[in-house]
Amino acid sequence: MKSMFSSTIAAVSTPRGRGGIAVIRISGDDAIKICDKFIAAKAPLNETESRRAVLGRVTGENGETLDECIVTVFRAPHSYTGEDTVEISCHGGEVLCREILKRAFACGAVPATAGEFTRRAFSAGKLSLTEAEAVIGMIDAGSTAALSLSRKNLDGELSEELEKVYQKLREVVGSVYAGIDFPDEDLETLDKDGMARGIDEAISALSSLADSYRAGHAVCEGVRTVIAGKPNTGKSTVLNLICGEDRAIVTSVPGTTRDVVSEKAVVGDVTLDLRDTAGIRETDDEIEKLGVGRSLDEIGKCELMLAVFDTSRPLDDEDEKVMGYANGAKARGAAVIYVLNKSDLETAADLSVFNKYENVVTICAKDEKSKAVLSEKINELFVGGALGDGGAVVTNARQHASVIRALEFCKSARAALDTLGTDIAGSELERAMSEISELDGREVGVDVVNEIFGKFCVGK
Amino acid sequence: MKSMFSSTIAAVSTPRGRGGIAVIRISGDDAIKICDKFIAAKAPLNETESRRAVLGRVTGENGETLDECIVTVFRAPHSYTGEDTVEISCHGGEVLCREILKRAFACGAVPATAGEFTRRAFSAGKLSLTEAEAVIGMIDAGSTAALSLSRKNLDGELSEELEKVYQKLREVVGSVYAGIDFPDEDLETLDKDGMARGIDEAISALSSLADSYRAGHAVCEGVRTVIAGKPNTGKSTVLNLICGEDRAIVTSVPGTTRDVVSEKAVVGDVTLDLRDTAGIRETDDEIEKLGVGRSLDEIGKCELMLAVFDTSRPLDDEDEKVMGYANGAKARGAAVIYVLNKSDLETAADLSVFNKYENVVTICAKDEKSKAVLSEKINELFVGGALGDGGAVVTNARQHASVIRALEFCKSARAALDTLGTDIAGSELERAMSEISELDGREVGVDVVNEIFGKFCVGK
Repeated sequence: MKSMFSSTIAAVSTPRGRGGIAVIRISGDDAIKICDKFIAAKAPLNETESRRAVLGRVTGENGETLDECIVTVFRAPHSYTGEDTVEISCHGGEVLCREILKRAFACGAVPATAGEFTRRAFSAGKLSLTEAEAVIGMIDAGSTAALSLSRKNLDGELSEELEKVYQKLREVVGSVYAGIDFPDEDLETLDKDGMARGIDEAISALSSLADSYRAGHAVCEGVRTVIAGKPNTGKSTVLNLICGEDRAIVTSVPGTTRDVVSEKAVVGDVTLDLRDTAGIRETDDEIEKLGVGRSLDEIGKCELMLAVFDTSRPLDDEDEKVMGYANGAKARGAAVIYVLNKSDLETAADLSVFNKYENVVTICAKDEKSKAVLSEKINELFVGGALGDGGAVVTNARQHASVIRALEFCKSARAALDTLGTDIAGSELERAMSEISELDGREVGVDVVNEIFGKFCVGK
Repeated sequence: MKSMFSSTIAAVSTPRGRGGIAVIRISGDDAIKICDKFIAAKAPLNETESRRAVLGRVTGENGETLDECIVTVFRAPHSYTGEDTVEISCHGGEVLCREILKRAFACGAVPATAGEFTRRAFSAGKLSLTEAEAVIGMIDAGSTAALSLSRKNLDGELSEELEKVYQKLREVVGSVYAGIDFPDEDLETLDKDGMARGIDEAISALSSLADSYRAGHAVCEGVRTVIAGKPNTGKSTVLNLICGEDRAIVTSVPGTTRDVVSEKAVVGDVTLDLRDTAGIRETDDEIEKLGVGRSLDEIGKCELMLAVFDTSRPLDDEDEKVMGYANGAKARGAAVIYVLNKSDLETAADLSVFNKYENVVTICAKDEKSKAVLSEKINELFVGGALGDGGAVVTNARQHASVIRALEFCKSARAALDTLGTDIAGSELERAMSEISELDGREVGVDVVNEIFGKFCVGK
């Protein structure tokens, strides 16, 4: 079975670094032929059974042994890419991997680009585009909830839901054009009420998908979060409470005026992308000024603001300023949780001012148990019951944007059905179908594909 | 075939981080039984052919799918460890790997300690101790020369050479004791001349091995190197010339008074471990002082000193100081290369002072071609022809220390043979044999084994 790609690609598929094992993957029509040039096994790989792990001596250009490896041949179409694939499991050294790859290149393979193995799997029809994105999701998952959502989408949950909507729209569009092209023939088609019902069903399904992104985003991509409050309200204690022992991933995000530190923390099912907390944590005056500026920037961009107040002191002008920022954030559509901190101390603040707000929690940030209170509120706000019902979940911004566009076209078709006529409705529905096609990769521009697979690591 | 270990161990064997594939290894008597509890394949793994890669669904505790993986069973003794082993090739995500490992632990496996897979392979007699060390060497190799030496030792080159010496000594010791225990019997044994010849052969072989460590160390461990010279002689240009595009590995070595930066650079077959170059590079006065202090520290510890002089200016007191430091380093046994820099400019220095020194090179550090001049000299000093002749090479300090001790015992036995008598010689030879046994792991203390395998990563 010939591949649609003329080149045979090779890359190290395991992470870089020091490890016991590394795996080098070679995929393409010539994969086996190329490997037979530099791997000496008991029998040529060409004659080796598929999927049988055999001992192979990887040789350098002068026939010297580079490594003894476990080599497995996967013949098309029964491989990850759908092409002939050879997997070389060697010792996990960086120079060793480089030398083995060099041999593969010298024997005819070319370096794989980021995501090229999965891209070939997609092109061979082994994966839909949302399934391919779920592969990235599996790899990047920072929590078990994210892992589980990605896994479901890799199993095709989202693909299948989209397929249902697509087929529904196809039925309606078919009926529209049957009515236009063959008005006198007695084809089995939907009448206008049937069309309306069909479109309504699609709208309902797409609306659910669009709504699911709030949870999908919170779980898989992370909620951009800022902890704000006047000095000494316990912001850094709240930070430590949230990050605690799960303080696993610290990323330095370059490119802005100065390095903004972003910390990912998993709180229940939600991943928080905590920004600029360094600035918020500073206490020295001059730096505080800079910090406040950066905090305001972040408040202007966040999806969740944790506004922290110290209830052991009377509220003052500065606290009111923070409430003002919170109002601004809410006006932008961000969520705000009012965190009334220091509940272990006597209350000196007049808390009646918070009666007009939703999402007020009372905690003692020094007490580990308070984490559950915060976590419950955050999960209620972002996930709700969205993950439990087993429905398909949209997990990234690209998918969400496509769903929203498809939804808009459907709504516009539904409106046209009653006013402008079925032919206009049909053309809107075709645009909705085209969005769904692109979303799942049935028809998709090369730039979209490039962008998606560019997010992969080399070797996948 | 039962393993000598009662536990079944599991670990991620690939490096940590983001990658297309990760491999989880499970080894021990219960490996297959444990995996059958949480991996659903077409047939139970228990009934699956050895070495056949099958698709397996890894399930969570509630039966949900964690990942679809490629699973391969290697049955004892035909596995890396010599035990029943299952390899799970899953998507390369950190949380995913953690979740799969958790399942393996919940089903009866225990976490593998650093190097435990290889330690089990050693215990099962699949590898000698020097071969196990060569596995670390393969993984850590920072150059093709290091890779090649480690590969040879993994193939048993050093083991075989040690075995030859051991057998030779055994023959001599056998003759000694035959003479003592059964002086009147006519056993076929070596006479005193034969014994002397046997010991001499062992001494010669051990001397060669001891000598080979200079090259083995330079190639595999790296030569501790300092670039010294008064300001503006071009030290940092020399550093850049050496590190150039190969400036691949930068390690921060903590634990000293302040962070000492160590850069590894590959120069021909030799790896240079360049120390404290940050200090040497500083020019600001106060820091310079600190830098000079650290440079002197490093000069006192280095194995190679590159003493840099600017030939475009007359030599002065400061240059003479550097020559003094160089004399000190040489007195300690370090190598010194006198680097006469700025050969592109007119010579103003009186170079006759260097006539009394060996290892003087003239370069222009700004010129890429000068790297070859330096490289040739460094390789001449540390490797010579040692790698070409195909003899066994000692590649780490532990091996070297054992060889030296074995050599000393042989020499002392040789002396005793002529003076104190054969019985004393015999007891010295037994101590030499014991050293060789420990060196290659025939008989070895648990602390030595612990130390060696502690250098491994978890998962190997």
